[in-house]
Amino acid sequence: MTKIAATNVTWHHGHVDREQRYGMLKQRGTTIWFTGLSGSGKSTIAYTVEHALVERGHLSYVLDGDNIRHGLNKNLGFSPEDRTENIRRIGEVAKLFADTGVITLTSFISPYRADRDLVRKIHEEGKLPFVEVHVDVPVEICETRDPKGLYKKARAGEIKEFTGISAPYEAPLKPELTIVNTTMSVADAATQVIEYLLSKKLIPAL
Amino acid sequence: MTKIAATNVTWHHGHVDREQRYGMLKQRGTTIWFTGLSGSGKSTIAYTVEHALVERGHLSYVLDGDNIRHGLNKNLGFSPEDRTENIRRIGEVAKLFADTGVITLTSFISPYRADRDLVRKIHEEGKLPFVEVHVDVPVEICETRDPKGLYKKARAGEIKEFTGISAPYEAPLKPELTIVNTTMSVADAATQVIEYLLSKKLIPAL
Repeated sequence: MTKIAATNVTWHHGHVDREQRYGMLKQRGTTIWFTGLSGSGKSTIAYTVEHALVERGHLSYVLDGDNIRHGLNKNLGFSPEDRTENIRRIGEVAKLFADTGVITLTSFISPYRADRDLVRKIHEEGKLPFVEVHVDVPVEICETRDPKGLYKKARAGEIKEFTGISAPYEAPLKPELTIVNTTMSVADAATQVIEYLLSKKLIPAL
Repeated sequence: MTKIAATNVTWHHGHVDREQRYGMLKQRGTTIWFTGLSGSGKSTIAYTVEHALVERGHLSYVLDGDNIRHGLNKNLGFSPEDRTENIRRIGEVAKLFADTGVITLTSFISPYRADRDLVRKIHEEGKLPFVEVHVDVPVEICETRDPKGLYKKARAGEIKEFTGISAPYEAPLKPELTIVNTTMSVADAATQVIEYLLSKKLIPAL
């Protein structure tokens, strides 16, 4: 096996410093936490923001039901205890992503205030920015949209413990951002998030 | 609120394509999974490889006991069931990291073959590279090193189910790489990993 150029570098021990990765990426790791009812438009907005961030040259990633519920959290259900553990795990993963330097968007109903506050605390302790975004749409409107037919099933009793129908949703008291996503376009909602990140200098102007 | 440049971009829906992030990072997401006994040198090698990768301009991150056992997996112990769940969760997180484009190094004893094979399967299903690295050091040598005094405690019965003493270690049958880390320097061990990544074109030559 021939020796490679790497043998000329200084070998360091211990974890690479966060700032070194941030410098390489030219961005700081941040968690943008979308919360709101099923059908409020969380994922649509999160995906749209992800695209906008990537077009601006930022490494960005969405954690949502598709990649979490079928993977990391596939052994969890929808009981209050499991919902709490679901959010705790997602919060810890988001923290690792942010430590790596990724602008991470999470899209989960996350109905309990205490669970979201725990995730906020985890980030604060890790000195990582946490942006709670409340996608605020009344349950009556979400139920009319019902893109996945879940409200219908919940009303029929086919889904137990469905947030807004048979399980509580505790709206954030002081979210960093509220998106009243009733009549606005997805582009306007996403723009609101990008403008917030710009205003807080979490991403640089173009 | 003033309109920003972002309103000129095309708004996309759905998840950003993996290749788009890979292109931005100029690298492909990969999981490098170190397995071996306590004291075999897994973490030291992983950290050293992480530094070498970052110096080569690659976004790289180590998942290890420090950031996993006190966070995501703090509700797990060391029973066989908990060890299995520990590795499963780490495997799922590594997969998400690799999907994001990060070269992820994991440093865990991960004593059970079936658990590691499950993580391999998760990666294969996700079409993500999985590099199993066996840091191969006989238990007698690890016990003499005993950097954290754990073997001493295990012999004294103060730690139950300690791998190599009172719990089994199942060595990989076909690891991508074996590092016989008995007399070699950390630099040589790390070089072996970098050379493997180069040989498989998982990272480009400088």
